[in-house]
Amino acid sequence: MQNFAPFHPPQRLLLGPGPSNAAPSVLQSMSQPLLGHLDPLFVKMMEEIKVMLRSIFQTKNDLTFPISGTGSAGMEFCFVNLIEPGDEVIIGVNGVFGTRMCDVAERCGAKVTKVEAEWGCIIEADKVAEALKKVSKPKLVAIVHAETSTGALTPVEEISKLAHAAGALFLLDTVTSLGGCPVKLDEWGVDAVYSGTQKCLSAPPGLAPVSLSPRAMEVATKRKTKVQSWYLDVNLLASYWGQERVYHHTAPITMNYGLHEALRLVLEEGLEARWKRHEQSYLSLKKGLAEMGLSLASQEGHQLWQLNAVRVPEGVDEAAVRKSFLNDYSIEIGAGLGPMKGKIWRVGMMGENSTQKNVEIVLSTFKKTLGK
Amino acid sequence: MQNFAPFHPPQRLLLGPGPSNAAPSVLQSMSQPLLGHLDPLFVKMMEEIKVMLRSIFQTKNDLTFPISGTGSAGMEFCFVNLIEPGDEVIIGVNGVFGTRMCDVAERCGAKVTKVEAEWGCIIEADKVAEALKKVSKPKLVAIVHAETSTGALTPVEEISKLAHAAGALFLLDTVTSLGGCPVKLDEWGVDAVYSGTQKCLSAPPGLAPVSLSPRAMEVATKRKTKVQSWYLDVNLLASYWGQERVYHHTAPITMNYGLHEALRLVLEEGLEARWKRHEQSYLSLKKGLAEMGLSLASQEGHQLWQLNAVRVPEGVDEAAVRKSFLNDYSIEIGAGLGPMKGKIWRVGMMGENSTQKNVEIVLSTFKKTLGK
Repeated sequence: MQNFAPFHPPQRLLLGPGPSNAAPSVLQSMSQPLLGHLDPLFVKMMEEIKVMLRSIFQTKNDLTFPISGTGSAGMEFCFVNLIEPGDEVIIGVNGVFGTRMCDVAERCGAKVTKVEAEWGCIIEADKVAEALKKVSKPKLVAIVHAETSTGALTPVEEISKLAHAAGALFLLDTVTSLGGCPVKLDEWGVDAVYSGTQKCLSAPPGLAPVSLSPRAMEVATKRKTKVQSWYLDVNLLASYWGQERVYHHTAPITMNYGLHEALRLVLEEGLEARWKRHEQSYLSLKKGLAEMGLSLASQEGHQLWQLNAVRVPEGVDEAAVRKSFLNDYSIEIGAGLGPMKGKIWRVGMMGENSTQKNVEIVLSTFKKTLGK
Repeated sequence: MQNFAPFHPPQRLLLGPGPSNAAPSVLQSMSQPLLGHLDPLFVKMMEEIKVMLRSIFQTKNDLTFPISGTGSAGMEFCFVNLIEPGDEVIIGVNGVFGTRMCDVAERCGAKVTKVEAEWGCIIEADKVAEALKKVSKPKLVAIVHAETSTGALTPVEEISKLAHAAGALFLLDTVTSLGGCPVKLDEWGVDAVYSGTQKCLSAPPGLAPVSLSPRAMEVATKRKTKVQSWYLDVNLLASYWGQERVYHHTAPITMNYGLHEALRLVLEEGLEARWKRHEQSYLSLKKGLAEMGLSLASQEGHQLWQLNAVRVPEGVDEAAVRKSFLNDYSIEIGAGLGPMKGKIWRVGMMGENSTQKNVEIVLSTFKKTLGK
C-alpha cells in the first residue's frame, strides 16, 4: 500500500464565501487532549456553549446548541423537525440557499410555495404577504437572512410578523449573518434558526448552531409522525444536550473546543463592536472598489457587510483572476454560482478577517491582477 | 453578558467505549491553518483520504469517503440511501446499535424483521437464514460487527453469503471494529459500511467513513423516490467527493486534517500489526482480570479485542468505581447500557490506547479501586 506524507497546508488568507480564517487561539484549542463526551468537564463546557450561543443569537430559547454537522445539517434539522408530509411551506428564493431549502423541505413531504426574487435582490415582504393569501394553512415561512451566493441581506422583521399573523412559524437561515451583522431572534420573533461556524464566528466548519423557540418546540414534540431523521431528531437531541444527558451520538469533542473558544472571542469583542467592524470593512472596500471602477452586484441598500459580490468587468477572465489571487498571493476569493457564475467574485470579509488591513490587501491585489 | 474562561481540558486516559485518545500528531494536525474546501490542495488531501480509507476497509469501492457527521450519521447515510418505503429489512439486534438500526430503518419506511440475540452474544447465521425464509423480498440484511455496548464480535462472512443468496444487500456497522480487528469489505462481500473516527482509528469524533459497493450504488442511484435526507444523499455527495467537485456542503476542514493523519498512522503501523496489537492487549487484560477474579460478560470465543465488558462483582458499586477511575486517576472507563446497566464496566483498548502499558494501568487501578 502506498503511503502519503503528512499534510501541511500553507497559510492562506481566506476571503471567499467561507470558511474564513479562525483566530490562532481557536486553532490552538483544537490540539487539546480529548475528553469523553459524557465527562463532567465536557458537559460543563457544552453548557457554556449553550449560554454563549443564546447570547449571540439574542434569545432566551432553551433549545439552543450546535448540531454535529455543517450548516446544511442545521438547515435539515429545522425542516425535518417542523415539517410533516402535506404541510404548506413558503420559502423565499433569491439564491442558492433558498433553492436548497425548497429541496430539503420537499424531501420532508412539504408543499412548497416559492417567493422568488432576482439573484442579488432581497425577498420583499409584500410578496410574502401575497403568497400567504394563496395558501390555505401555512405551517412555516422560511427566509435566508444573508444570501452567501449573492451578497444580499433580506430584512426579516416584517416578514416574521406576516408569518405569525397567518399562524405560521418563521424560520431563518443565519449561516453567514450570525456574528457579522445584527441577528436578534427574540426581538424578531424567529421560531427556528440555523447557522454555521465557519463564517463570521471564525471557527472551522463542522458544527451548525441552531435554536428553536418554545412555539417551534411544541410543534416538534407534538408531531403526528416520527421525525424522518434519527440523527437530527430534536426529541432525542434535547435529552442529550439537556440536563438528562441521555446518550444519543458522540459529540465532536475537538470541534466543540474550537466553537467554545470562537464564541468566547465574539463575546469578548462584543456584538455591537463586531457588527460595526464588519460594516466599516464593507464601506471601506466598496469605496476602494468604486475608485477602481468596480461595483457590487447586490441590491443597493441591502448589501451584506460580510460578503461582497464584486461585478467582473467586461472582457476580464473571472477564473484567471481568482487563480492569480490563490496561486500568486495565497488569497482565496470565491466564484459566482448559478446565474451569477462568471459574473461576480465573492469577496468575504468575515469574522477575524474583516479588517481594514485585509480591505487594503484585497484592493491592492485586484489592482495587480487587473493591471490597474 | 457573562463571559467564560478559555477551556483547558486535563489529560485523561480514555479507556471507555470511545472516544479513545488521539495520537499527538493527529491533535497537532488540527491546529494547522484552514484551507478553503475547494482549494486544490484540500481536494488533493481528500483524494488521499479516499485512497487510505479504501486500503483500511480492504475494498476497491470507488464510493469510499468520510461523511461530515459522527458514526450515527454514517448509519443513517447507509439506510436513507438504500431503503425506500415498504422495503423489507433484516437487522441483527444484540445491543444498542442493532436496536438503533431498527429505529433508523423504520424512519425510512422499512418493514423490519429483527434477528435477536441476548446482549453479549453474537447474531447466529442460522437465525438469519430462518428470518430470510420468512420474508418475501429482502432488500437488505444489516449486522453490527463489533457491538460496542456489549463487547461481542459477530462473524459475518456466512451471513453475507446468506444475504446475497436471497438477493439482498449486506450492510455492516464497523464503528468499533475498523482498525482494531480484521475488516475485509470485498472479501466478505459487504455492500454498505459505516464507521467512526474516534475508536480504533484514534482521531477525534466528527466524521463517519463510509463505503458502498457498485451493487449498492446501483440501488442508490436507481431509486424510485428521492433520498429523504439532502445532507446524506449519496447522489449529491458522490459529485462533491468525486472528480466533479460539485459544491454540496462545506467539508469540516480541520476534522479531515485529523483523519488524514490518523489514517496515515494506521497504514504506517500496518493493519496486521495493528490487529495483532489489539489482540495482545485483549489477551493480556483478560488474563490479568482473571487473576483478580474478574471475568468478561461477552460470549466466549467472540469477545472483542478492543472493548472488554468486565462483569461487576456482586456487592460492588459500579458507578463509584467508575467515578474513582475518573476523579482519582483521570482514567475514563464506560458504564453498561440497557440490560447491562450496572452489571458491566466497558473497558476500551482502542487504537493508540491498546498497549501493554495501559493494560497494566487498568489492572492496577482496578486493584486499587476494588481494594484487592
